[in-house]
Amino acid sequence: MPAYSTNMRFKFPLLAILLEIITIILFALFVEYEHEGHGHSDTKHGEHGNKTKNIADISLYPMFQDVHVMIFIGFGFLMTFLKRYGFSSVGINLLLAAFGLQWGLLMQGFWHGGGKIHVSILKMINADFSTATVLITFGAVLGKTSPVQLLILTILEITIFAANEHLVAEILGASDIGASMTIHAFGAYFGLAVARMLYRPGLKNGHENDGSVYHSDLFAMIGTIFLWMFWPSFNSAIADPGVPQFTAVVNTYLSLAACVLSAYALSSLVEHKGKLDMVHIQNATLAGGVAVGTCADMAIGPFGAMLIGFLAGIISTLGFKFLSPILASTLCIQDTCGVHNLHGMPGILGGLAGIVAVALGKKHGSAGMQAAALGCSLGFALVGGAITGLIIRLPIWGQPPDQNCFDDSIYWEVPEEEGENDGSLTHGEHFKNKAEA
Amino acid sequence: MPAYSTNMRFKFPLLAILLEIITIILFALFVEYEHEGHGHSDTKHGEHGNKTKNIADISLYPMFQDVHVMIFIGFGFLMTFLKRYGFSSVGINLLLAAFGLQWGLLMQGFWHGGGKIHVSILKMINADFSTATVLITFGAVLGKTSPVQLLILTILEITIFAANEHLVAEILGASDIGASMTIHAFGAYFGLAVARMLYRPGLKNGHENDGSVYHSDLFAMIGTIFLWMFWPSFNSAIADPGVPQFTAVVNTYLSLAACVLSAYALSSLVEHKGKLDMVHIQNATLAGGVAVGTCADMAIGPFGAMLIGFLAGIISTLGFKFLSPILASTLCIQDTCGVHNLHGMPGILGGLAGIVAVALGKKHGSAGMQAAALGCSLGFALVGGAITGLIIRLPIWGQPPDQNCFDDSIYWEVPEEEGENDGSLTHGEHFKNKAEA
Amino acid sequence: MPAYSTNMRFKFPLLAILLEIITIILFALFVEYEHEGHGHSDTKHGEHGNKTKNIADISLYPMFQDVHVMIFIGFGFLMTFLKRYGFSSVGINLLLAAFGLQWGLLMQGFWHGGGKIHVSILKMINADFSTATVLITFGAVLGKTSPVQLLILTILEITIFAANEHLVAEILGASDIGASMTIHAFGAYFGLAVARMLYRPGLKNGHENDGSVYHSDLFAMIGTIFLWMFWPSFNSAIADPGVPQFTAVVNTYLSLAACVLSAYALSSLVEHKGKLDMVHIQNATLAGGVAVGTCADMAIGPFGAMLIGFLAGIISTLGFKFLSPILASTLCIQDTCGVHNLHGMPGILGGLAGIVAVALGKKHGSAGMQAAALGCSLGFALVGGAITGLIIRLPIWGQPPDQNCFDDSIYWEVPEEEGENDGSLTHGEHFKNKAEA
Repeated sequence: MPAYSTNMRFKFPLLAILLEIITIILFALFVEYEHEGHGHSDTKHGEHGNKTKNIADISLYPMFQDVHVMIFIGFGFLMTFLKRYGFSSVGINLLLAAFGLQWGLLMQGFWHGGGKIHVSILKMINADFSTATVLITFGAVLGKTSPVQLLILTILEITIFAANEHLVAEILGASDIGASMTIHAFGAYFGLAVARMLYRPGLKNGHENDGSVYHSDLFAMIGTIFLWMFWPSFNSAIADPGVPQFTAVVNTYLSLAACVLSAYALSSLVEHKGKLDMVHIQNATLAGGVAVGTCADMAIGPFGAMLIGFLAGIISTLGFKFLSPILASTLCIQDTCGVHNLHGMPGILGGLAGIVAVALGKKHGSAGMQAAALGCSLGFALVGGAITGLIIRLPIWGQPPDQNCFDDSIYWEVPEEEGENDGSLTHGEHFKNKAEA
Repeated sequence: MPAYSTNMRFKFPLLAILLEIITIILFALFVEYEHEGHGHSDTKHGEHGNKTKNIADISLYPMFQDVHVMIFIGFGFLMTFLKRYGFSSVGINLLLAAFGLQWGLLMQGFWHGGGKIHVSILKMINADFSTATVLITFGAVLGKTSPVQLLILTILEITIFAANEHLVAEILGASDIGASMTIHAFGAYFGLAVARMLYRPGLKNGHENDGSVYHSDLFAMIGTIFLWMFWPSFNSAIADPGVPQFTAVVNTYLSLAACVLSAYALSSLVEHKGKLDMVHIQNATLAGGVAVGTCADMAIGPFGAMLIGFLAGIISTLGFKFLSPILASTLCIQDTCGVHNLHGMPGILGGLAGIVAVALGKKHGSAGMQAAALGCSLGFALVGGAITGLIIRLPIWGQPPDQNCFDDSIYWEVPEEEGENDGSLTHGEHFKNKAEA
Repeated sequence: MPAYSTNMRFKFPLLAILLEIITIILFALFVEYEHEGHGHSDTKHGEHGNKTKNIADISLYPMFQDVHVMIFIGFGFLMTFLKRYGFSSVGINLLLAAFGLQWGLLMQGFWHGGGKIHVSILKMINADFSTATVLITFGAVLGKTSPVQLLILTILEITIFAANEHLVAEILGASDIGASMTIHAFGAYFGLAVARMLYRPGLKNGHENDGSVYHSDLFAMIGTIFLWMFWPSFNSAIADPGVPQFTAVVNTYLSLAACVLSAYALSSLVEHKGKLDMVHIQNATLAGGVAVGTCADMAIGPFGAMLIGFLAGIISTLGFKFLSPILASTLCIQDTCGVHNLHGMPGILGGLAGIVAVALGKKHGSAGMQAAALGCSLGFALVGGAITGLIIRLPIWGQPPDQNCFDDSIYWEVPEEEGENDGSLTHGEHFKNKAEA
């Protein structure tokens, strides 16, 4: 990529406005409130629905808000660990999720076939879920992509996600209530495939801004803790009411608790002088939520959930320590946030746990179909991600040159940090700049 | 204002204690738990009540907590963008809101006429709402007012707000479920009128502390995101249960999503080299929540809500870029946070959208009364704000001199920032200081 | 303690893994989902249960999540005020709470006698509560203890807490719905006793890292505000549904609002030049939630709740200003976060208010039993804390030497702060370190 055209002045605004206008037109044509559709839509599509819901029911609203917090605060702040990329982490996260949820609402209807799309709280939860895949993928390419590239990625990934999700849930009839396979593994391997296509040899020896400072690690912990706390809502939000939903809450809660202990233990075990590493703590403590996803609503027993979380914490921490450097050096996959360790491997672990749990009769279903769902999700992710990577690496989308990676100032007006007095942006200068502009 | 008396040692504590003691006495005389009043109070006052609520019902409690988060985290952290005013932003926000909600509970009862005031979750939501007007106004004068001035402003503004709200809802019978007119436009224009009265020619060329640093902008994003996520609760909390409440959730959710795209697009379009400006992202992305407020519970259609949000994002961003400098230079209105762009113009847009929606029959009502409600809210705001500004600019209330504006250290013990080692406040020094004091 | 062995490489990981494996085995033997036990467990144990709950009921889930946020965000970030101890504050908080809730689930069952333990949302709330005692104690010894010491403390304190809680609620039949006595006073005096045992003469004149910087105080405010907002959930979560639960919400909400005013007033009154002190604002504003705990569900009237909050704010602020230095210099109790002022004295105030309220007939009960419950909680705390302190001060647990207190870098890989360029940890170096390790 010898030529970079990073000036976003027209490209980005025009794309964003165009996408939003098209979306509004599609909503005008195809989208109604749930109650206008007399609730037929939800009762038709089994699996992922609370079948007994009334029209205009907002009983799922607190669950929805928990998921919303995970998407916008959780993912957004988790990625602020980079020292000079906080604006993009939380800001572009907001942009992609806000667009993604609109696109996700449309795609849910599209793949689920004809007629109007009826917005319900359940659909809004699923729309948030569809954006989660994009945000996981965003983590893999964080710091190395332009907003234009990422908006295009959002359209493509959510479209492919919705197709795969439809296949897994409706055609294969597989269980994946907390979406270990369809969201986490899918989003991670999609992201790794994109990252492979966007490989930058120039970053082989690292980049001075590809790291954290003390305060940025604390901002990231805001994301970690909100993700950790509300993960039981993520895994149970669309479960059937009653015992399955309750079970999903309890299993996720216990898996995460166990995962914290193993993540901390492994972090200390593998690090220099037994010190804890913030990268592990910020990420591997969450692997228990990912890994228990597929069988969250199954009767695997409290200790079964804890065992899954315990293993996930170990695998995830070891991945950060030993596998990520190999992926980068050998497979040319530069995974900024290590999504392979938080979402990829724990997602596969979740899929495997689901196969075992179904085979053991913990939930009615077919172990074969579970295995097919896992393979299918990985296949869609890798192929979809590779194609998407090929498309967004075209030089016209404003991809930043190596030296500007991990740096907000390429896409943002950035005030200087405390102590660098002359550079801070006062309102007076602000207005002056405006006058000059 | 030649003479400043900024030492708060006696003035502030005595005022705060006195106000709290008076408030406790008023509560002892006039306030009971809801169930002690057998629920009569809520069923009497139509419009803003869930008429079918049971006694001691806490089903609205999750909605209340969402609004609570918006008031205390949302508004509080949104204003921490200033580099040296974070303590005041989040701290004085807490003070004003904690006092304001008590005063708001009293005023709700006062204007709604005789008998005891019965505290319910619904009343607590309305009390939080009444503080929102004060916090919007606080944004307009942020950095330029003392805690004493602001406590007096809180009493006056909430009293006038409650009068206007009573007039709009009960006398005019206008719809304003998300309070575009009665909270957002009211709070903003009240604030602009106060800011006009407190005009400081000495700040015409800006102030070195009237700006952000990198980390302070990230703290502000905590506020932005929590406001953005929970705005559907704000606009639907006091809607009638069932379809209206559900509609308010969906409309607000979609309006905000669309608003993000247009705010980002316009920010990039108008800024130097197409870069995004944090001031726009922190604020204009929320304008969709403000603008859809009045007609949130009306059947405007999903695309109608998105259209309103889309327009709000454009108007708000353009306001920050082009209108705010003019307001400051021509009309002598120094609006620190640009509340005119986030709450003022989008609030009016919301009022206008409400007139159109009612005229089109999207909700039973009178377009004329909607228009009267908008005019009434603006009138009360401008006159009330001007009078309040005249009162609080009396030199006895400890208004800070120009050079101490936007600086926490005038009202707070402030430790120095990292890197300025000698200035940081250790506990040892802390105790020593205490011994000396 | 002349010999320090602070290298955690094997000690910490082995302890953490061992504890988790033992815990998983105990769960496999003793813990089932609630619905597997046909709900018998909850209906047996009166007082702290919603007696009419159905099986697999998640109606308490939003309350649980509010409490969860208080435990993990609230306590975690409240302690990030220290300038170089943020990783430990929020990170070790997560570790202790994640382990503590598992241990708390076991201990609830253990003291409540035979048979299986059935996990319900109510039990999960109680498990979170049991961790709160540990986190309060953590505040007293913050910066001066190793993760190994703290894990041992967690086991001991939760075991003793569960015994005392059983005694107070089941044997004495005392009321303590918001746990002023059994959590707050207990956790604080337990912590003070531990701190006495760990007294460090070397820190008599302070420590350069025992203080805040500007940004760390803002991080701490995230904790303060979330605790403040959700405290009504803490005090009402396990109250009987209907009037008692509603009353607990309203009383706590009003007590906290009144407390803010008195805390601000007193802070300004006692500080140099009338300035506000962040230590007071971060802590004393919460004392109203602690103090109203015991009688939160009693008919003390809105103004009664406010009076309690008002007093608590005064007592707490005065404690920080005048009592903490005396405790340190005279009684050799170095209470890092001042938990005596936030949880200790307000907890006792809460216990006393409960005695008075029961004596006045605000709730059916025995004032004598209330007094016994208070005495009992203090006794268990002081004796339990002293014994625990004796155990964890054994030199083998890796307690840090004086000069490394209040410093994350003893247990964490710490990147340098912005501006100290050469020290920041980039991913490149990260990988290089890994290669060298």
